[in-house]
Amino acid sequence: MDTLTKSDIKIKKGIEKTSFPNSEKVYIKGTLHPEISVGMRKVKLMPTVEVVNGEKVIHENAPVYVYDTSGAFSDPAVEVNLEKGLPRLREEWIVKRGDVERLTDISSEYGRMRRDDSSLDHLRFDHITLPYKAKDGMQITQMYYAKQGIITPEMEYVAIRENMNCRELGIETHITPEFVRAEVAAGRAVIPANINHPEAEPMIIGRNFLVKINTNIGNSATTSGIEEEVEKAVWSCKWGGDTLMDLSTGDNIHETREWIVRNCPVPVGTVPIYQALEKVDGRVEDLTWEIFRDTLIEQCEQGVDYFTIHCGIRRHNVHLADSRLCGIVSRGGSIMSKWCIVHNQESFLYEHFDDICDILAQYDVAVSLGDGLRPGSTYDANDKAQFAELDTMGELVLRAWDKNVQAFIEGPGHVPMHKIKENMERQITACHSAPFYTLGPLVTDIAPAYDHITSAIGAAQIGWLGTAMLCYVTPKEHLGLPDKEDVRVGVVTYKIAAHAADLAKGHPGAAVRDNALSKARYEFRWKDQFNLSLDPEKAMEYFKAGGHSDGEYCTMCGPNFCAMKLSRDLKNCN
Amino acid sequence: MDTLTKSDIKIKKGIEKTSFPNSEKVYIKGTLHPEISVGMRKVKLMPTVEVVNGEKVIHENAPVYVYDTSGAFSDPAVEVNLEKGLPRLREEWIVKRGDVERLTDISSEYGRMRRDDSSLDHLRFDHITLPYKAKDGMQITQMYYAKQGIITPEMEYVAIRENMNCRELGIETHITPEFVRAEVAAGRAVIPANINHPEAEPMIIGRNFLVKINTNIGNSATTSGIEEEVEKAVWSCKWGGDTLMDLSTGDNIHETREWIVRNCPVPVGTVPIYQALEKVDGRVEDLTWEIFRDTLIEQCEQGVDYFTIHCGIRRHNVHLADSRLCGIVSRGGSIMSKWCIVHNQESFLYEHFDDICDILAQYDVAVSLGDGLRPGSTYDANDKAQFAELDTMGELVLRAWDKNVQAFIEGPGHVPMHKIKENMERQITACHSAPFYTLGPLVTDIAPAYDHITSAIGAAQIGWLGTAMLCYVTPKEHLGLPDKEDVRVGVVTYKIAAHAADLAKGHPGAAVRDNALSKARYEFRWKDQFNLSLDPEKAMEYFKAGGHSDGEYCTMCGPNFCAMKLSRDLKNCN
Repeated sequence: MDTLTKSDIKIKKGIEKTSFPNSEKVYIKGTLHPEISVGMRKVKLMPTVEVVNGEKVIHENAPVYVYDTSGAFSDPAVEVNLEKGLPRLREEWIVKRGDVERLTDISSEYGRMRRDDSSLDHLRFDHITLPYKAKDGMQITQMYYAKQGIITPEMEYVAIRENMNCRELGIETHITPEFVRAEVAAGRAVIPANINHPEAEPMIIGRNFLVKINTNIGNSATTSGIEEEVEKAVWSCKWGGDTLMDLSTGDNIHETREWIVRNCPVPVGTVPIYQALEKVDGRVEDLTWEIFRDTLIEQCEQGVDYFTIHCGIRRHNVHLADSRLCGIVSRGGSIMSKWCIVHNQESFLYEHFDDICDILAQYDVAVSLGDGLRPGSTYDANDKAQFAELDTMGELVLRAWDKNVQAFIEGPGHVPMHKIKENMERQITACHSAPFYTLGPLVTDIAPAYDHITSAIGAAQIGWLGTAMLCYVTPKEHLGLPDKEDVRVGVVTYKIAAHAADLAKGHPGAAVRDNALSKARYEFRWKDQFNLSLDPEKAMEYFKAGGHSDGEYCTMCGPNFCAMKLSRDLKNCN
Repeated sequence: MDTLTKSDIKIKKGIEKTSFPNSEKVYIKGTLHPEISVGMRKVKLMPTVEVVNGEKVIHENAPVYVYDTSGAFSDPAVEVNLEKGLPRLREEWIVKRGDVERLTDISSEYGRMRRDDSSLDHLRFDHITLPYKAKDGMQITQMYYAKQGIITPEMEYVAIRENMNCRELGIETHITPEFVRAEVAAGRAVIPANINHPEAEPMIIGRNFLVKINTNIGNSATTSGIEEEVEKAVWSCKWGGDTLMDLSTGDNIHETREWIVRNCPVPVGTVPIYQALEKVDGRVEDLTWEIFRDTLIEQCEQGVDYFTIHCGIRRHNVHLADSRLCGIVSRGGSIMSKWCIVHNQESFLYEHFDDICDILAQYDVAVSLGDGLRPGSTYDANDKAQFAELDTMGELVLRAWDKNVQAFIEGPGHVPMHKIKENMERQITACHSAPFYTLGPLVTDIAPAYDHITSAIGAAQIGWLGTAMLCYVTPKEHLGLPDKEDVRVGVVTYKIAAHAADLAKGHPGAAVRDNALSKARYEFRWKDQFNLSLDPEKAMEYFKAGGHSDGEYCTMCGPNFCAMKLSRDLKNCN
């Protein structure tokens, strides 16, 4: 099953730095916590030049501050070495709180076994440090702090980050550090921030904030090596992925993850049952709570920020999916359903949910309640199986909050447009306003190879209605694993959906970039138009394909037919 | 300005026939009009094979009938020769009504001039026939017939076409020939059907029917020849374009259009002011009613099925656009605005609207009231300029209907999601339920090179809300003219948006294709899945990129992690 060879997985020492044209990495300092600096991308613009009464008049155009997910990869002042990993930004904040301790050994049996297996040395990340864990009896999650009225550096960080410097432009914002705290305390927002992933820059998932997008990467048994996955991770962050799920299956999941987490500037999520299943050689019936538990601890100590756990699957609900067109399409859901049936027993994930939360609380790992019964075709949308599971999730989210574990809820899948709203409304009610995190939804089934688009249509709508994070879909959905170019298309497509939702929700300052780009377009500042766009390289490439550069027209209309040129001339007439 | 040379425009004698895998061209006969046969694509499916108690049980899967816009190009029994044009399907129906006559000469001065110019012989379509026109005093539009209670062959044709043989599957439909007639009579639907374009297969644009999509092609002064445009036209019909707008500017517009119309199985639209402007060498101030009138007649007699006319631009409204971020972005809108300002006069299109309708009525050309003041940035959406023009359109549509001219209304443009609904509602009210035909709308401005996606998000929503036809947008929007591959991506993207809207609106039988595809997906009938998809070639290409064929998994999950495989196995457990 392992198709990796030594030569495949030797990781590159360096990596191309992320850069965007005419952009500068800038940092905004904290006020409550002066030690924090929040990175943003500042896009500098050309001035507007007008001729008034025969004289040139020049107006400066204010720079645009763009939310930046690329971390140190886009800071020319930081040397990034993949073999060493990213700077450990949050470590000082975490240690300073005095409620965690560094362990003297890793706690997971499997983790120790992998560490001690010298045959893996060639593919191991070299600079593994010992993990942190809450001191005995200490509560260390962002939710706990928030409930105590404490505004952490992480909270101030996300408040600054969300606002994209809009105050400088005179735009009022409701997103203060205190607002962030209150939302986290209420469970309406999550800051995924494992104390063992201090490399990640804090971000927030909640419906009163910018809509976020998640990118899935990871190899399957049949394709792709570590180097390629790390490259995809960095690449995804370049284009705007807010969190990253490593869905690797096959061998070497443990080592692949270490490389990814150490080099990932955004929170990392996983589906631990995938690895647990590999540990029992794919035999679902052999899965046990003990193996799963050890997997959780292994991953908590590596620094995974959130776990998708399909604990909403109940023995008595499994057969609700029998009458479906597409049955169960969630991998985790089908694994747990099979386990329940084979053993004729309640799922161990459901039974041990409190134990799971106790583990997660010690590292501040968030739980993403996986929708194992999400519809896999528009025909199956909003059915009994789906909503029965949603109700179970609503019960579990309260239990997570009781233990101060941050939680969010996963959602469909395939849903025709007229059934999207019901999904959002029921989720808010059933799950007590915990953040919703959806895959698409795809609004039709008939377009394999274009499912980034079928799903972006649904994603934009559900994002507008209140979904906090959208899981991207690439053109390869249903067909194969995405390659690097698919990741780029998937991320940009989902940035579109998320941004469209931000505009519709009226997020403070969301329209600044649109307006600056449109102004540049109207004034034929082509390069500004491209530099402000989600994918400057592609826009430039298409523009150049027409054989033109920087003139006052493009090949779409030709030189004599440009409406905007005519329209600009008109302004000077009466 | 003319970049064409003789060798560029020599048209190919043949063209590759349109074909889709495992598909058959079938025809359904009319009942009221037994002479009509409505072409559809019948996708044949593999049977479902199950093993029950050790024995193979085979269930047949019913074929799926797909709405087909490719005309004779997909009928292996018809030999298509581009130099001769398509079969003249409707000519017999038209002549039989006894209310038209064949002219002895073409009526347009310009048309005669081009005909008599032997320097154009090398690029001329060879088999031009003399045009038809209404007999003196006769009313010949579909709207007129509908108001008289007459169900024409065109009306029965579209009724059959819309239903995609759903009765065979036991699905009830409200779309009867009488329903079609009533909708056309009320002005809620349009059947664009110039008597001089008998090659086109009848289709209907109205909000109680399938959502349609329009494709724009056409060269600009700087690129692309006749052969390429004809190729794009056929190509667009292959992928599902319902109507085709030829937006050519530059020289040889007249000849290019003749080639396109004669070979186009779907209604063709144009923006006559583009050609009128070429006739005055691009000098807007030199445009006159007489030149425009001659252009209308020229194009009516060539067979254009609908004209976009920007007659909603009023002198006193032009400056409403001054406070915009992007001014006027419609080419026709900016031309007419400039004309009004330079002459300080009401637009001749508005002034002569009744005369325009009198001309159009004689050929049954529909008018598409162009939105010259559509917003070109999300900032400008739903502003005074836009809605003032919409009110004018509402006035004009009643005047068109008075003369039995079929009419529809064009709409934006760039609109953030929360402002889409207002567009649709105001259009229905202001324009008395005339069909709406929108460009997108693009829900954000920040994604040049991905504007097929930004706009599909808006298009799906406005289609669901009631827009009858969606004008496609390609990845090259704002950047350059689309090439053939861009046309394909644009059309498929818009088929997704339109189909998503059809599902949400509950069009009879719309879900049949989704359900059949999802069932095929669940049963690992990969080829059926691809054959039922909007772009079988691309789906197959992506699937094969994973290195697999026809197994019970894809590279996305690998062989041991397929949820659907697990799920299918579960059905046999208890």
